[in-house]
Amino acid sequence: MVLIAACQLELDVETPAACVEQSTSALLTAVENGAEIIVLPELSNSGYVFETTLELEMSATTLEGALIQKWKEIAADNDVVIVAGINLFEGSKYWNASVIIDRSGLCGWYAKAHLFGDEGKFFTAGDEIPLVIQTSKGRIATLVCYDIEFPEWVRIAMLHGAQLLAVPTNWPEIGQRVTSPVMEVIRVQAAASQNKLVVVAADRCGDERGQSWVSTSVITDDEGVIKAIARPEMNPQTQIIYAEVELPTNTAITDKNDVRKDRRPQLYSSILNQ
Amino acid sequence: MVLIAACQLELDVETPAACVEQSTSALLTAVENGAEIIVLPELSNSGYVFETTLELEMSATTLEGALIQKWKEIAADNDVVIVAGINLFEGSKYWNASVIIDRSGLCGWYAKAHLFGDEGKFFTAGDEIPLVIQTSKGRIATLVCYDIEFPEWVRIAMLHGAQLLAVPTNWPEIGQRVTSPVMEVIRVQAAASQNKLVVVAADRCGDERGQSWVSTSVITDDEGVIKAIARPEMNPQTQIIYAEVELPTNTAITDKNDVRKDRRPQLYSSILNQ
Repeated sequence: MVLIAACQLELDVETPAACVEQSTSALLTAVENGAEIIVLPELSNSGYVFETTLELEMSATTLEGALIQKWKEIAADNDVVIVAGINLFEGSKYWNASVIIDRSGLCGWYAKAHLFGDEGKFFTAGDEIPLVIQTSKGRIATLVCYDIEFPEWVRIAMLHGAQLLAVPTNWPEIGQRVTSPVMEVIRVQAAASQNKLVVVAADRCGDERGQSWVSTSVITDDEGVIKAIARPEMNPQTQIIYAEVELPTNTAITDKNDVRKDRRPQLYSSILNQ
Repeated sequence: MVLIAACQLELDVETPAACVEQSTSALLTAVENGAEIIVLPELSNSGYVFETTLELEMSATTLEGALIQKWKEIAADNDVVIVAGINLFEGSKYWNASVIIDRSGLCGWYAKAHLFGDEGKFFTAGDEIPLVIQTSKGRIATLVCYDIEFPEWVRIAMLHGAQLLAVPTNWPEIGQRVTSPVMEVIRVQAAASQNKLVVVAADRCGDERGQSWVSTSVITDDEGVIKAIARPEMNPQTQIIYAEVELPTNTAITDKNDVRKDRRPQLYSSILNQ
């Protein structure tokens, strides 16, 4: 069993220093509470609703910068795994990225491949598949927010042996139909269940330049059952949700069926590649 | 708007004549109640829990046989679309099939590609993609039961322009974790939502040779919202659930985002084909 935390934070693009402060503070609180794998929201160092590229540039972090250094120290000092969405400047471009950090340091970074709304005005879309890393706490994959709506993308993480999928997210309220839980959570449950993966989604709360969020961070087990879920009615309070979850060691669902082995990829290829 | 019915039936593999009778009776009831698209469960002419190939052979239907003829008459007389799971004998083989019938006759048939449990002892797995037909009531796709757990397969139906996905199913109780609704329904909701498809799943009820079913037929709209759902506590009573649903005319989810156009298939191909 591993204790997982998803940190749901109220960030504001107008005060990136406060975003960094809040994110790091939430990490430390989660560590204090015994969490071993901790997930922060998308763009946790910057906020989301950019209006200018100056804002983008002013809030970006580099892989060698102080923020990642600080998080590496927290991971090393406490033997925890941190997965965080960040506004990342790397290779002369800005990325809506996710980093995986464990006690050994920065394990890798991933750039969101499916950009949502106006994100393409600010960020370059990633061309690499979801990052899957053998960390000190299990085999962990990450992608960012809208990426998880593409079942192909989650499948790729599963096919690379992920046990847990960490999803830094900013799930905007965009006039979705009211359901309980929100459809974002239902899609997470299906992704977990269909891929036999633990899924952890860390969302936002509060209001940023008029944009609100569904504020429903969630942790499922590998059958898609919700183990912890944030309470949107507590918005905009920061919420850290915790769940103790067993990471799966295989993809079998019965003694005769297996979500990985039962795939028939030769039938999929010609159409899905179009 | 189109009125859709999913018929949840108590079938018994030991009395295939009664299966045929019940299925046809449910169709006629749904027609009387104004349904325009009617979905029957998987293997609605035979039941599911075969013990011998003799049972399989004795209960199979051919495409030219009396049952399909009767259903064609019902479809033609009432201008309805029927999607039904059947034990089909065709080309010297037995298929766990689904047929689509509209007022013009038999539009096509599909053979389940992802066989579950012991089905492979009795049926040949289909090698063709989900059937998608422009019927008199909309562009309708079909696949069978376990097929829907493969998001690649649902994607293919969407990519072929389906507005509605009809899923004849026999969802067995196999010690799933208790959730409300059952995870089968949550995966249907995600499939609808991620593909902007109306989804109709017609399940079983009752007990067949000790096998029970989750008994939770469901109809969603194209955002994955449940429009009608069977009440498992009424098991084993036959339930026909109805919902009036708008069929989608595109795959846009916001003014800037579209679940079809936002895909990046060039990134998926090398991995998903493995």
